Amino acid sequence: MTITLSQKCIAEFFGTFVLVFMGCGSAVLAGAHVGFLGIAFAFGLSVVTMAYAVGHISGCHLNPAITISLWSTGKISGKDAGAYIVSQILGAIVASAVLYFIAQGKADYSLAANGLGANGVDQGSPDHYSLVSGLIAEIVLTAIFLVVVHGTTSKNNGNGAFAGLAIGLCLTMIHIVGIPVTGVSVNPARSIGPAIFVGGQALSNLWVFIVGPIVGGLLGGGIWKIYDKN
Amino acid sequence: MTITLSQKCIAEFFGTFVLVFMGCGSAVLAGAHVGFLGIAFAFGLSVVTMAYAVGHISGCHLNPAITISLWSTGKISGKDAGAYIVSQILGAIVASAVLYFIAQGKADYSLAANGLGANGVDQGSPDHYSLVSGLIAEIVLTAIFLVVVHGTTSKNNGNGAFAGLAIGLCLTMIHIVGIPVTGVSVNPARSIGPAIFVGGQALSNLWVFIVGPIVGGLLGGGIWKIYDKN
Amino acid sequence: MTITLSQKCIAEFFGTFVLVFMGCGSAVLAGAHVGFLGIAFAFGLSVVTMAYAVGHISGCHLNPAITISLWSTGKISGKDAGAYIVSQILGAIVASAVLYFIAQGKADYSLAANGLGANGVDQGSPDHYSLVSGLIAEIVLTAIFLVVVHGTTSKNNGNGAFAGLAIGLCLTMIHIVGIPVTGVSVNPARSIGPAIFVGGQALSNLWVFIVGPIVGGLLGGGIWKIYDKN
Amino acid sequence: MTITLSQKCIAEFFGTFVLVFMGCGSAVLAGAHVGFLGIAFAFGLSVVTMAYAVGHISGCHLNPAITISLWSTGKISGKDAGAYIVSQILGAIVASAVLYFIAQGKADYSLAANGLGANGVDQGSPDHYSLVSGLIAEIVLTAIFLVVVHGTTSKNNGNGAFAGLAIGLCLTMIHIVGIPVTGVSVNPARSIGPAIFVGGQALSNLWVFIVGPIVGGLLGGGIWKIYDKN
Repeated sequence: MTITLSQKCIAEFFGTFVLVFMGCGSAVLAGAHVGFLGIAFAFGLSVVTMAYAVGHISGCHLNPAITISLWSTGKISGKDAGAYIVSQILGAIVASAVLYFIAQGKADYSLAANGLGANGVDQGSPDHYSLVSGLIAEIVLTAIFLVVVHGTTSKNNGNGAFAGLAIGLCLTMIHIVGIPVTGVSVNPARSIGPAIFVGGQALSNLWVFIVGPIVGGLLGGGIWKIYDKN
Repeated sequence: MTITLSQKCIAEFFGTFVLVFMGCGSAVLAGAHVGFLGIAFAFGLSVVTMAYAVGHISGCHLNPAITISLWSTGKISGKDAGAYIVSQILGAIVASAVLYFIAQGKADYSLAANGLGANGVDQGSPDHYSLVSGLIAEIVLTAIFLVVVHGTTSKNNGNGAFAGLAIGLCLTMIHIVGIPVTGVSVNPARSIGPAIFVGGQALSNLWVFIVGPIVGGLLGGGIWKIYDKN
Repeated sequence: MTITLSQKCIAEFFGTFVLVFMGCGSAVLAGAHVGFLGIAFAFGLSVVTMAYAVGHISGCHLNPAITISLWSTGKISGKDAGAYIVSQILGAIVASAVLYFIAQGKADYSLAANGLGANGVDQGSPDHYSLVSGLIAEIVLTAIFLVVVHGTTSKNNGNGAFAGLAIGLCLTMIHIVGIPVTGVSVNPARSIGPAIFVGGQALSNLWVFIVGPIVGGLLGGGIWKIYDKN
Repeated sequence: MTITLSQKCIAEFFGTFVLVFMGCGSAVLAGAHVGFLGIAFAFGLSVVTMAYAVGHISGCHLNPAITISLWSTGKISGKDAGAYIVSQILGAIVASAVLYFIAQGKADYSLAANGLGANGVDQGSPDHYSLVSGLIAEIVLTAIFLVVVHGTTSKNNGNGAFAGLAIGLCLTMIHIVGIPVTGVSVNPARSIGPAIFVGGQALSNLWVFIVGPIVGGLLGGGIWKIYDKN
């Protein structure tokens, strides 16, 4: 089967829609019930399920930091990477819009009070962590994430069928640890979607969640290359 | 081995019994202890376990929205689909009856106060979401569910052994996000069972949980067809 | 490799030790911290881990209700079944003893107040469910458990590698639903261990957790036989 | 592909970094939000993810108690074992340093009040368990852990692909049960890292978390040898 770039982009658009709708949706609609642990499972399981649902089409990146890290290690062309990233960002924006619409069906919902799952530092951080801590956390967490992405899908790895499970549960682990610090991005698309609707601090902090994950993703690819000769 | 339609229907009956007995049972018997996250795991794990226990017999639909979506994409005949749906609804009704019997063994149980895991909108919604939000949520969540069902079992997918795990954990994810909105149906059989015993608003809202999941299921099949040429 | 009955019995002894030490240990040592959901995961994960650690030796029954159900369907000889059951009960008793010893290292521990993870009905039931509800629950839950055991390990099932995961997560699901009713046995050995040390009501209720799981286990084997012709 | 000892040591360094950064990080940064169950998942998932990310390079020990137990059963040379252990301890120390740096970005953080995920007994034990209970718990829990490590990776085991999942989820199970007793070490490197920064009781108790896991690990290897002839 030849898979066209259009098919891949639709898979990336839909997969990122699911990541943002379910991940941010768990925070916005259910956060008060399921806590940070429930939100962590929602984000991670969105990747587990999409990995096995669309992975055979697009590789299931759903995240510009992943796409850029794979491009930096020569695993995707620059043209495809660009199309992937645009699809991911569009999927995240549409997911935020649908989530916003559903959330307004609750009588006492207000965007200002309940947010939309946006990331932040300082006053925008759930536990009020500083900009420096937030940026370092995003870099370290994304580096770990990308080592898992590269390592589990390495051609030297005989257990590649488990990659989707390991990568998704890695995202759960990252959220368990990092939600109090920044709400956890490790994914520029996931941060751009809600920030557009929330505005204010979510937009002014947005650069942290673009720079941090991209730097961390490149770092993770570099760490992987040291131990796993390709 | 030739598997008869009778064997398949018994598998669908029993599998849907387990989904409703364990899923709704977690809410009715244990909801106050395990919270929405525990209920989400009970629903999801009922599908994980049944997928590997009866999947080789019937394909483990357990859900008319799945059966209809698979019928719409030509994966099951109309005759078989009809028999599956009847078996699923009967399994859900028997499960609700057994659950009701066990629940009454608690001294202070009353059906009116504790319900039986029925779905609802407005006053019947856990967090009082509107009919529109509830209907949209059921459509979107079932669409996501069916993309995962179709995608993980696609003949183009080399990791089909993980389908049961991915589909079940998708149901967990869906419940983490959606319980506050409607209690989560995404499955007409799962809603019909408790509604028959609870009556009142559960019955008058029931159409939402028949129409929403069926529309969402057809939508999910359509999305899958776009990115994964068969 | 020829595996002797002695090796199998050591595997069953150790596996059941782990099930009772970790499962009941989560309730006794950590129940106040992790809740019923945490206890449910401890019980389930004890089976997941043992299935992959000792399953290739003994088949990882760890439970007389499983051994008897497999014997009733001709999958294990009467002689081996007897040896398995003795090993399981001894493993459960030793686990309860070690757990009791560790628990006493907490300054304010008293067996009367904290129990040892024993099962019960009426006053011994966490939420005070009646004897009838408790007995029915144990029968239904064990029947579901045994359908999963038989179905996931059926020679007609192409995904047998996932059996350990499905069976273990089934036990997690069963505990999520059933802990409020009886504390969940579905396993006579798991109930005998703590009851010997706790005495009183735990001993007088013990027949429920021997009869219920055995009846349920035979029922589950019978249901499986109907849909999955061997 | 020939894998050099240097590559293996980098994998062990990075893997242990992730175990300590995510495991202890979940306690330090997020413990108040996710509870002991969330911490248990963070520790376990760090092993699941690293097993599939670096397991094909180094075998993913991340723990001197594992390395010593594998050395005692002839599965790794003394020279390699020494290099592994040094790499693991260095990874744990660097992880504790990075975690400490991020944690200080919270306005009201103080090392004395919040610790750094260090293990302890008596006053250092979360629920104030005695030294004897703590030592026995560490020995028993590490023995169970090593039976799972040896059993799931046995050459007689046909489901070796699931080893990483089973070993990681075993660590989750161990933490669910044992955090109230000692905070759970079962891994000398994981205890050395935080203890160096916390000092005081964490350092004076440190021998418990070196001796206990090593004794338990050797015991687990011995139990495995009895039932699983190599």
